[in-house]
Amino acid sequence: MTDFFKGIPQVKFEGADSDNEFAFKHYNPDEVIMGKRMEDHLRFSIAYWHSFAYEGGDPFGGRTFERPWFDGGIENAKLKADVAFEMYDILQAPFFAFHDLDVRPEGKDFAESTRNLEEIVDYFALKMESSKTKLLWGTANLFTHRRFMAGAATNPDPDVFAYSAATIKSCMDATIKLGGQNYVLWGGREGYETLLNTDLTKEADHAARMLEMVVNYKHKMGWDGQILIEPKPQEPSKHQYDYDVATVYGFLKRYGLENEVKLNLEQGHAILAGHSFEHELAVARSLGMLGSIDMNRNDYQSGWDTDQFPNNVPEVALAYYEVLSAGGFTKGGTNFDSRIRRQSLDAEDLILSHVGGMDICARGLKAAAAMLEDGKLEAARDARYADWDSAASKAMLESDLESIQARVLADGVNPEPRSGRQERLENLVNSYM
Amino acid sequence: MTDFFKGIPQVKFEGADSDNEFAFKHYNPDEVIMGKRMEDHLRFSIAYWHSFAYEGGDPFGGRTFERPWFDGGIENAKLKADVAFEMYDILQAPFFAFHDLDVRPEGKDFAESTRNLEEIVDYFALKMESSKTKLLWGTANLFTHRRFMAGAATNPDPDVFAYSAATIKSCMDATIKLGGQNYVLWGGREGYETLLNTDLTKEADHAARMLEMVVNYKHKMGWDGQILIEPKPQEPSKHQYDYDVATVYGFLKRYGLENEVKLNLEQGHAILAGHSFEHELAVARSLGMLGSIDMNRNDYQSGWDTDQFPNNVPEVALAYYEVLSAGGFTKGGTNFDSRIRRQSLDAEDLILSHVGGMDICARGLKAAAAMLEDGKLEAARDARYADWDSAASKAMLESDLESIQARVLADGVNPEPRSGRQERLENLVNSYM
Amino acid sequence: MTDFFKGIPQVKFEGADSDNEFAFKHYNPDEVIMGKRMEDHLRFSIAYWHSFAYEGGDPFGGRTFERPWFDGGIENAKLKADVAFEMYDILQAPFFAFHDLDVRPEGKDFAESTRNLEEIVDYFALKMESSKTKLLWGTANLFTHRRFMAGAATNPDPDVFAYSAATIKSCMDATIKLGGQNYVLWGGREGYETLLNTDLTKEADHAARMLEMVVNYKHKMGWDGQILIEPKPQEPSKHQYDYDVATVYGFLKRYGLENEVKLNLEQGHAILAGHSFEHELAVARSLGMLGSIDMNRNDYQSGWDTDQFPNNVPEVALAYYEVLSAGGFTKGGTNFDSRIRRQSLDAEDLILSHVGGMDICARGLKAAAAMLEDGKLEAARDARYADWDSAASKAMLESDLESIQARVLADGVNPEPRSGRQERLENLVNSYM
Amino acid sequence: MTDFFKGIPQVKFEGADSDNEFAFKHYNPDEVIMGKRMEDHLRFSIAYWHSFAYEGGDPFGGRTFERPWFDGGIENAKLKADVAFEMYDILQAPFFAFHDLDVRPEGKDFAESTRNLEEIVDYFALKMESSKTKLLWGTANLFTHRRFMAGAATNPDPDVFAYSAATIKSCMDATIKLGGQNYVLWGGREGYETLLNTDLTKEADHAARMLEMVVNYKHKMGWDGQILIEPKPQEPSKHQYDYDVATVYGFLKRYGLENEVKLNLEQGHAILAGHSFEHELAVARSLGMLGSIDMNRNDYQSGWDTDQFPNNVPEVALAYYEVLSAGGFTKGGTNFDSRIRRQSLDAEDLILSHVGGMDICARGLKAAAAMLEDGKLEAARDARYADWDSAASKAMLESDLESIQARVLADGVNPEPRSGRQERLENLVNSYM
Repeated sequence: MTDFFKGIPQVKFEGADSDNEFAFKHYNPDEVIMGKRMEDHLRFSIAYWHSFAYEGGDPFGGRTFERPWFDGGIENAKLKADVAFEMYDILQAPFFAFHDLDVRPEGKDFAESTRNLEEIVDYFALKMESSKTKLLWGTANLFTHRRFMAGAATNPDPDVFAYSAATIKSCMDATIKLGGQNYVLWGGREGYETLLNTDLTKEADHAARMLEMVVNYKHKMGWDGQILIEPKPQEPSKHQYDYDVATVYGFLKRYGLENEVKLNLEQGHAILAGHSFEHELAVARSLGMLGSIDMNRNDYQSGWDTDQFPNNVPEVALAYYEVLSAGGFTKGGTNFDSRIRRQSLDAEDLILSHVGGMDICARGLKAAAAMLEDGKLEAARDARYADWDSAASKAMLESDLESIQARVLADGVNPEPRSGRQERLENLVNSYM
Repeated sequence: MTDFFKGIPQVKFEGADSDNEFAFKHYNPDEVIMGKRMEDHLRFSIAYWHSFAYEGGDPFGGRTFERPWFDGGIENAKLKADVAFEMYDILQAPFFAFHDLDVRPEGKDFAESTRNLEEIVDYFALKMESSKTKLLWGTANLFTHRRFMAGAATNPDPDVFAYSAATIKSCMDATIKLGGQNYVLWGGREGYETLLNTDLTKEADHAARMLEMVVNYKHKMGWDGQILIEPKPQEPSKHQYDYDVATVYGFLKRYGLENEVKLNLEQGHAILAGHSFEHELAVARSLGMLGSIDMNRNDYQSGWDTDQFPNNVPEVALAYYEVLSAGGFTKGGTNFDSRIRRQSLDAEDLILSHVGGMDICARGLKAAAAMLEDGKLEAARDARYADWDSAASKAMLESDLESIQARVLADGVNPEPRSGRQERLENLVNSYM
Repeated sequence: MTDFFKGIPQVKFEGADSDNEFAFKHYNPDEVIMGKRMEDHLRFSIAYWHSFAYEGGDPFGGRTFERPWFDGGIENAKLKADVAFEMYDILQAPFFAFHDLDVRPEGKDFAESTRNLEEIVDYFALKMESSKTKLLWGTANLFTHRRFMAGAATNPDPDVFAYSAATIKSCMDATIKLGGQNYVLWGGREGYETLLNTDLTKEADHAARMLEMVVNYKHKMGWDGQILIEPKPQEPSKHQYDYDVATVYGFLKRYGLENEVKLNLEQGHAILAGHSFEHELAVARSLGMLGSIDMNRNDYQSGWDTDQFPNNVPEVALAYYEVLSAGGFTKGGTNFDSRIRRQSLDAEDLILSHVGGMDICARGLKAAAAMLEDGKLEAARDARYADWDSAASKAMLESDLESIQARVLADGVNPEPRSGRQERLENLVNSYM
Repeated sequence: MTDFFKGIPQVKFEGADSDNEFAFKHYNPDEVIMGKRMEDHLRFSIAYWHSFAYEGGDPFGGRTFERPWFDGGIENAKLKADVAFEMYDILQAPFFAFHDLDVRPEGKDFAESTRNLEEIVDYFALKMESSKTKLLWGTANLFTHRRFMAGAATNPDPDVFAYSAATIKSCMDATIKLGGQNYVLWGGREGYETLLNTDLTKEADHAARMLEMVVNYKHKMGWDGQILIEPKPQEPSKHQYDYDVATVYGFLKRYGLENEVKLNLEQGHAILAGHSFEHELAVARSLGMLGSIDMNRNDYQSGWDTDQFPNNVPEVALAYYEVLSAGGFTKGGTNFDSRIRRQSLDAEDLILSHVGGMDICARGLKAAAAMLEDGKLEAARDARYADWDSAASKAMLESDLESIQARVLADGVNPEPRSGRQERLENLVNSYM
């Protein structure tokens, strides 16, 4: 045991009346909701990057955290892993997720970076033997190092495409080796800073070709994990190609990849794209693309990705309503892509932020399940569209403008609007919170 | 002649040194740019709605304009048409565009509204015999009347779908009869106010089916005009399905309509979607979807559609750079979807706002043409991607992750980033302004 | 009794388990919270404009509501008043609020408009004799009519200043006569559309002078109500002078009016200004300027004033936390400056939207009171600043740069940062929801 | 001479027809505009931080620039200074500006940091003897180091207040010693991340007290430079106290400091606050608070501070119109608070970005001067308010609500609105561009 979390107990469910900061008040892993254990619904994952690699910097300030594993080589990377698995244990987290750069020291070249990664992966494998925590997903960091400044797959330099492809293979190998259930692609540099130096057509073609290679490699390896794209509209780039769900869908259709790839959706990225989180989830559900979620919260008054811990039950409930309506997670889960504020310096902050987030999600899940089981909201929705079920309506849909116009004239069709009942539905939703 | 524009002369080109408010300083219809007359490049169109139907209202205030044709029946609709064609003549406008609701009184039912439309279309046809102004596009207003409050094609009520289909047929007929070159669909109510009462899947299916009917009717009529969708992300709805270029592309691909429909793009709608205008144009160009533009300008600090006249040459130049790069307009054009401010009460304001806008566009076009003819910007862009032209790069694109990784390891590929030269390209662009 | 609300019962408190749509689940007027009845804490007010004058229009669509009192003269204005007081009774609303234009027909000139207002005020007075509903505030609508398009007090035309002053006097008289407890000034047209035609200095001076006249008239009349300014940053204007709390404070200080005027704060306006609602309330509290609130909710993804009913308890709780911390309302209250969506056509929608909003506010108030009574949040805040209570700290504050620098050098002052504990405080707050 | 800029010539004015990248096309220091040399109008300053301290990082990526002076001690700091003064010479920059942290290595404590600063200040002094470049302003970086994470003057820890005060004294001393003409305070950490742990009243009092100490020290030292506050609404903090011009004005009035402090205004910060740059300048001019400008440009579609080089002449012209209208700069100037993009790796990028920016400013200044000298815009503005010059209008302003209402009734005052002529004024403005 390291002494980083010294004195912090394992967090257990104690119920809503507990005033123990280090207890779950609402997240009870074994509680059965809609026929499934809460843990199996929520499938919580801890993000390695925010919890262990983030140093507390922001655009106007440097590192605020002081962690004993910063700045070192492979030994510190192992210390970091030790602490990480201790935190997973404290939180009883069923999953974690990582980028290569989070877990291993950068080498002097690709070969050394890969060896470093392999060494840490072996170390993870060893630790996972005695841990209940599994790998939700792996991914490659193709955005931090300066070589990626102008893109990875979409870089004007083919050597960067090559370096990126090689890195993705390493990360897919690591993911498969550790039994990961998903592989995620987030293209923070796949976009542009200025249109003036950008060839949109070429960059899209290259991005699609990389994605095909990823899909091909998955199949070649016989791996049955999910490939996930994570949309984000901008930041760090001025514009990112995976802008939002609808954009990624169009991209996948354009290149015939829509049956191979699903989506990992994040509240903060939805907000940056001008959408509510439930919008992005609902669109993905409608398109059959909902794979996994990055749970966090962006500050509504800040124009950048704040990645805060979720803390608003009514909002989280609407998100899980979409997840449950889509059938729940299969390979995906709830990854806390949330980071403590740079002023939250202490080990306790790291634990308690997750405790709070897990409780918020549990409350949201329970409210969502109650809404679904009660069925009033869906009944109201169905009733609104009920007239489309008639034979006449279906026949009209199969007809054409002329015959419809003829009927409108003949019958004097003059539709009278009906209340959309928005506030009543909002009242209904609030009755479950 | 009406007396609405009494005393206002026809606007002619007088050159940059003129200080006559009622003269073009930069728009010279006959000046040849890149082998084509400026008029034939820009293909200016006056929007009937903003110039003749807008009353000066806003969400906190009523009508400010006092026009003799407001509030009346068919006679006032004809007076409005008289004034409109006088304005087209004053501005030497080659095109105009209209919704049904702009030009005819609303009838008590569909039949009467259609008769009113037909009467005005006949009146237009008569006027167009002696006018140089042609119809750029027609469209149906499926958003103002309360029957459309919950959508047109996407309405939960099939009767509204029917009413909308019938209306579209009338408007397509009118467009064809008047020799219109495009038919536009803008779905201001095709979206939602709240997800709580919305079935995204059903609404998308219905929207697609309506579009298919439109395409089928076009072919049945043997009309060779363009069908255009105009994206807008929101307002009046909280979310509109035709959010932006990428979203509409995905929708068209989903329903196999991508070869039948092109896009009508607007600066203000681009801004509301979080994009620059040149972004939307460039994406459409890259996808082969650029059909026409609605020229205007949204206030960057206002979160709604302000539809102001363009007044910033460097911005407009970047827009026309995309248009020219896409080969210029064929059936499309530059429609001023711009309206005078509600405090701009006078007939003179109506004329001078367009004079200013046309001059701004002319300056933008000339700068864009100079950039393209000079070729330095494209040469810099090409040079940035030149390494992709090598046989090795092409072979890599055809290969797979394993072979690329093997090469990276074998060759020690370690790419060194190169300057993106953004500021130098911005300096270059500014040298043409 | 009119038949507008026929069949709708008076809404009563039935508790959280009730599934009666027409019952309060959380708002129990007589429940005592922190020593005061809930009704006396919240002091709910119904806004006449949204409930009875709003027609369902938006920038792209006309009237959707069909109310029997629309479009008429004084008789319809009285019918509207009848319906209004029926609604106040149904909701047991302790207060209402109105603009002159909401309640009376516009006359052909100021004299007739004033006579109309007086007739309706008399009618209100009569109704109020047998009603428990009192007047929270009155105000003048100086933004809808075209005469105000370029401002009221800040209009370039002195005659508009005069018309505005005369109108304000009428509205203050009406407010005083009806026993109103506040008079509100919202300057929707006190701002600009373009700086190019605006004299900021003159307009500020005129706005201040008008405010002085208002204050003088209040004193002359011996009225002890509150004068309130309602900040809003923009919409309808591009920029409004009463941008936010801090801006209004500066304006009042500039003209020496800071002790005469307090603020009426609205969630939607806060959002438009880039602030959270609790920010605006906290700043006003800190400055001693918190007078009253306009309760509503703006859609976070829409860039205009959506004025929806509040529906998020955690957000509302933080607002009431500030209100209670400031000592609660004295003359002010919770005015529902919220309007049903334009698709919410039915009389039932009008009632149930308020029922939902009142319940949300009640839940927020109870959570806020629990937080305050528990005291943990304030204790944590106080502890964070505790070092400022030392004599040395106080002495330092009274000293100067040289002596402080000397001490820093002498003592080797090298402060170590401490955790801001943000997530832990968020967890704490959520424990009360 | 270092070899950083090897091969790059001194940049000279060659006129608009030059196609030499390393020449000014529009900035001609000696050209006389409105009776003053262009250099003396614009008073360009190079920001030390962006040009020499910025490493190319962003929130998702590390250093991209490779500068020989990074990572070192005092010797590298001197190398940095050598390169800086070479760049000033290449650009003929009349001024520069710096924070302490930009120019000196951080010491192990305050004493060592101060000694480092003094050594560099001496080195600057030596270099300035043979340079034409003077110091526009100095300032203290009270936001990068972790000790300032919760604020400088507003920190809950009095020791941080002390450390900040000591640092400010050092930086004021350096500024005075080097003949600086202004001292700037930008409070990037004077704000909050969460209201939950913040005492707004205490923090405002402490901020004001620090400012008083600064003013007192200025007077004690007999220094006649300007004290400037630089407003910014947020980033890095969620909310910053110096939100915008109006907010800072209110703060200064609250503490009686409005005659001691002026403002340094930045385009990017204006945009983040929801204002146009010309708005902030115009408000400051109206309040007599316009001191200096930070010239840059924020991307309109990005919600963070992008600090790009200005590249839009019409926008820059409106800014200089306000500056010239305020009488032009006295002690202030045009500081390029602009940084090259992180992909602009080369020394040439550093030079050419400034060349482009200086040319844009020169074009903007010339257009602004032409507008002012021509006088048409001011004449139109004056005409709009002319009715306020009458004796009757002035008498009305001195009167009261009752007498005004009496006159409105007696005279039947019924004002008719007049056109605001916005588009015509925009056309007029564009005629100077």
